[in-house]
Amino acid sequence: MPRLTRKLRPLALADVTISGGFWQPWLEINRVSSIPHIYTMLKRTGRIDSLRLQWKPGDPNPPHIFWESDTAKWIEAASCSRATHPDPDLDRLIDETIALLTGAQQPDGYLNVHYTVVEPGKRWTNLRDCHEMYCAGHLIEAGVAHFRATGKRTLLEIVSRYADYIDSVFGPGKRPGYCGHEEIELALVKLYHATGEERYLRLAQYFINERGRKPYLYDTEAAARGDTRPDWADPEYRQSHLPVREQRDAVGHAVRAMYLYSGMADVAAETGDATLLAACRRLWESATGRKMYVTGGIGARHHGEAFGLDYELPNESAYAETCAAIGLMLFAHRMLQMEADGRYADVLERALFNGVLAGMSRDGAKYFYVNPLASGGGHHRQEFFDCACCPPNIARLLASLGLNLYSASDDALYVHLYAAGQAKARIAGQSVTLQVDTQYPWSGQVRMRIGLDAPGTFGLAVRIPGWCRKHKVTINGKPAAAKPVRGYATLRRPWQDGDEVVLTLDMPVERVAASPMVADNVGRVAIQRGPIVYCVEQCDHKAPVRSIFLADKAPLAARFDKRLLGGCVVVEGWGAAEDLGKWKGRLYQSPREAGKMRRVKIRAVPYFLWDNRKPGAMAVWLPRA
Amino acid sequence: MPRLTRKLRPLALADVTISGGFWQPWLEINRVSSIPHIYTMLKRTGRIDSLRLQWKPGDPNPPHIFWESDTAKWIEAASCSRATHPDPDLDRLIDETIALLTGAQQPDGYLNVHYTVVEPGKRWTNLRDCHEMYCAGHLIEAGVAHFRATGKRTLLEIVSRYADYIDSVFGPGKRPGYCGHEEIELALVKLYHATGEERYLRLAQYFINERGRKPYLYDTEAAARGDTRPDWADPEYRQSHLPVREQRDAVGHAVRAMYLYSGMADVAAETGDATLLAACRRLWESATGRKMYVTGGIGARHHGEAFGLDYELPNESAYAETCAAIGLMLFAHRMLQMEADGRYADVLERALFNGVLAGMSRDGAKYFYVNPLASGGGHHRQEFFDCACCPPNIARLLASLGLNLYSASDDALYVHLYAAGQAKARIAGQSVTLQVDTQYPWSGQVRMRIGLDAPGTFGLAVRIPGWCRKHKVTINGKPAAAKPVRGYATLRRPWQDGDEVVLTLDMPVERVAASPMVADNVGRVAIQRGPIVYCVEQCDHKAPVRSIFLADKAPLAARFDKRLLGGCVVVEGWGAAEDLGKWKGRLYQSPREAGKMRRVKIRAVPYFLWDNRKPGAMAVWLPRA
Repeated sequence: MPRLTRKLRPLALADVTISGGFWQPWLEINRVSSIPHIYTMLKRTGRIDSLRLQWKPGDPNPPHIFWESDTAKWIEAASCSRATHPDPDLDRLIDETIALLTGAQQPDGYLNVHYTVVEPGKRWTNLRDCHEMYCAGHLIEAGVAHFRATGKRTLLEIVSRYADYIDSVFGPGKRPGYCGHEEIELALVKLYHATGEERYLRLAQYFINERGRKPYLYDTEAAARGDTRPDWADPEYRQSHLPVREQRDAVGHAVRAMYLYSGMADVAAETGDATLLAACRRLWESATGRKMYVTGGIGARHHGEAFGLDYELPNESAYAETCAAIGLMLFAHRMLQMEADGRYADVLERALFNGVLAGMSRDGAKYFYVNPLASGGGHHRQEFFDCACCPPNIARLLASLGLNLYSASDDALYVHLYAAGQAKARIAGQSVTLQVDTQYPWSGQVRMRIGLDAPGTFGLAVRIPGWCRKHKVTINGKPAAAKPVRGYATLRRPWQDGDEVVLTLDMPVERVAASPMVADNVGRVAIQRGPIVYCVEQCDHKAPVRSIFLADKAPLAARFDKRLLGGCVVVEGWGAAEDLGKWKGRLYQSPREAGKMRRVKIRAVPYFLWDNRKPGAMAVWLPRA
Repeated sequence: MPRLTRKLRPLALADVTISGGFWQPWLEINRVSSIPHIYTMLKRTGRIDSLRLQWKPGDPNPPHIFWESDTAKWIEAASCSRATHPDPDLDRLIDETIALLTGAQQPDGYLNVHYTVVEPGKRWTNLRDCHEMYCAGHLIEAGVAHFRATGKRTLLEIVSRYADYIDSVFGPGKRPGYCGHEEIELALVKLYHATGEERYLRLAQYFINERGRKPYLYDTEAAARGDTRPDWADPEYRQSHLPVREQRDAVGHAVRAMYLYSGMADVAAETGDATLLAACRRLWESATGRKMYVTGGIGARHHGEAFGLDYELPNESAYAETCAAIGLMLFAHRMLQMEADGRYADVLERALFNGVLAGMSRDGAKYFYVNPLASGGGHHRQEFFDCACCPPNIARLLASLGLNLYSASDDALYVHLYAAGQAKARIAGQSVTLQVDTQYPWSGQVRMRIGLDAPGTFGLAVRIPGWCRKHKVTINGKPAAAKPVRGYATLRRPWQDGDEVVLTLDMPVERVAASPMVADNVGRVAIQRGPIVYCVEQCDHKAPVRSIFLADKAPLAARFDKRLLGGCVVVEGWGAAEDLGKWKGRLYQSPREAGKMRRVKIRAVPYFLWDNRKPGAMAVWLPRA
């Protein structure tokens, strides 16, 4: 098939090292705490042992339709982690789990425990609700990640057999179908890349093209099951209300939407399908231009875990599932490779540092599924969930974070996110290493040293984030012109080994306003510094969080507090709090009768670190005094 | 049983006339348009004809478990209406419907079409979900209202037989039970009043005392049905999570809560049960002090049609079901009779003029089920609903509005709501008529002329509403002292026939703020004049409603516009609107980059009249500029 030229190719995970700086401690938490914790939970809840196929009718805890997806994401996380930190014990656990998957795979290649032992004979009868291909997608992703991380083909072969079997069942001239929970589409493109087998790409393309066509698959399917009840959800819930190229608004279940759009972007890139790319661009605008929280959270509604209407972004009742923010990163990553435009990286970064990272506790063993932007004090991270998609999703995201930092174009090395460590790439036929030294995002200074076997001319495209109003670049200590074009300043010159580039991004504390169309934030501001969105927590304030205002002109100062939550930049200043005594027993009264405002000290902490201390209220958007 | 002295007794409907002023046109709309419209819809949807018991398995449109409640509320509305406006055609329809109910009643007294023809043999097997006693309650209320309005005992006898049957099934030493949807409790107290049969009061008391006791009825009941699924709703949804005397927070389905609390107040008043009264007071404080919209709407959440947490009062996603505001009036009415405290009347009035009256269109043929306090433009009244509780509920409320205007104490006539018309009462052994002339709530002036056969001394207790900061009273043109105590200024003196009292309530346009604990209204004000809450509608403004601000000091003027929506007071002044051009393609940016504010003319209309003109956005709470 013809390829639409992707402008950029991400560097392979093995070519990216993260050491020191902001990220290494987080990756350590992920490796040392989170990945083992998740395995323990998978084991304790029966997910691992369900693969032994020993469940019998009458037994408790029947294997659930989506259990494999949790296990698969853990394998992906663990594989990526052991790639940078060899760990024989972890290898053993991974291999054991893969051995169980081998045993659970059916002779024809099918692999879903629920439909093997709980409802045998019913496989593929309810694509609408039953997640079989969603699980297959995560198994495929795990198989590819495991192969890339270890070179072993054990899981890749299992998932290739499964994909071959699925390909033998569904497609033109075979059975029509597509999964109610998208995921397999992007996974099949990964499998195509890993194996070179074009049929996997064609199957992904088929699933995407088939979606939303008339006659409506899930009606036909329900009739075949003899299920006469109306569909419990709107077709928009599964993005199957229209053929994908006709979809203009990001609607329905936000995670599903992101996985679909990511698969669409992949297929568009591989097949040169301009109408599919146009749909991706429209859906990107809808999701990020009118339906995204300042944290990069998406999916405003609890009901259906779904996108709301344009500008429907309530704070306290926000859903903003962790997995949806991860999904937004996946979509952004793909659009960024295609278009090399910094606005995609801006959103990717916003989601990563706020909506995604908030999903995990500082100790790596508790998780938010839902990420509101305000809380009365009752919202807290949990050890695990019955529907446990988020914990292993953060784990695999962090373990494979390196994939998001750099890309190569034909003649330039792109630096999207600044993280201390090293990258190796081949640019314009030349081996290039880039040593990065930075405390970003706590500091806006990034020192980059170029390593070359021989001098050479190529571009170093450094991202100038959308939040940054002023930046400067020096090369070997001398100021260099660095005008950004579409978010990147490309330094193109004959480079010598040891050349040092220093990028300084001005990173003052900023107030952010939301469009007046966002009714919930009218008259409010959020605090942001660099890519980090801040919040105020009750434990730092005597006045109730809800009574705290921020005057437009009150100075706000950033300070690195090395003892706080592993070290972070806090933002401090003076706000105002309304005396609530005048409201005792009153719900409504004249503003003239309201309490007096008094000055109070405000301390804002990064949103992603909230709920790691004494439980209490929290707010991102503060009313302007 | 010992009676807790009710301080007040409402005047009988027949003793209250409403003529002219604000209310007569609304009662006319109800009589001429709404009541016939609802009958047409009951007929068209099969509700009326279902009473013929001709439905057979396989037929379409099976009679629904709660259909009788809709029909019953229509009979109640029609009966009250024909009491003041004799109408032989309407009498014929009522009698026909009652004849159908006679035919539908089973030999043992049972009366529910669904469980007679659709699921025979399953009556009382699912009190949790299936509304049988809820329907019985509405039938009983209809029977009492019909009897009081017409003197005919036809329906009263049907419902007494049904109540006797229910009394034979449930109670101490019989089957345990109470309905998942409260309503029968307050209805049985009405039946007790109408018939003098104390067993009905005892049955109401039993249902209230039984509620929430352990072992939990609905668990036992589900087990008896062989239903092993977990309860689909939380016990709080039905206020059955705790014995009622232990309930401290208004929780769950708001309509159910209000009907329960009303029944509790009734039983407390009849039985002198101080612990029950104390529970009513606590639940009143919870519902109105921390969970009520400025419109008197209650039940913030769509999910479960339920109360939210304290101060959880979102505007655009408000549920605020019309029936819940009506239920709040019912509860307020009962607390007012017991305690003679104007704060109950304040809430009753707030709900009536805002949350309830908004529920019906100006033409009386369209209804809001849900009453948000802000709309992007997509929320509109509908002709009817599958779950059609609200339309006949407003109809019966308006047709019996007179019950809410006056009460008698042993030695005073209380005037709670000012409405043009006449009241007849016996006070301290004396026949008193009160002729009221007023355009209230458009004007704060109320002229009251006392009619007496002979001079006499008694009190005229006129309510000084909580919203009123300044009032004066003249008697026969001379200023009189009128200091309010608990919301009422009692004018006690030897009265002569023809004495004239003029009450003038100062009624400026006011801004109202919400407690800072209501996160959704921080930095916002609502406009109120007298009891009327205002809103801005898109059709009166060029600038998008969401971009309109109101400066704290901007003067606002009230003006009666006789051509607008049947004549109403509009509030006009200057606000500010943000230029949205700067937000094109942007969701978040610095407040420094936001659009400039420009002066715009604001016109606010009564909230209850919104969505009667060109459809569009609406907002009650405006951000302060």
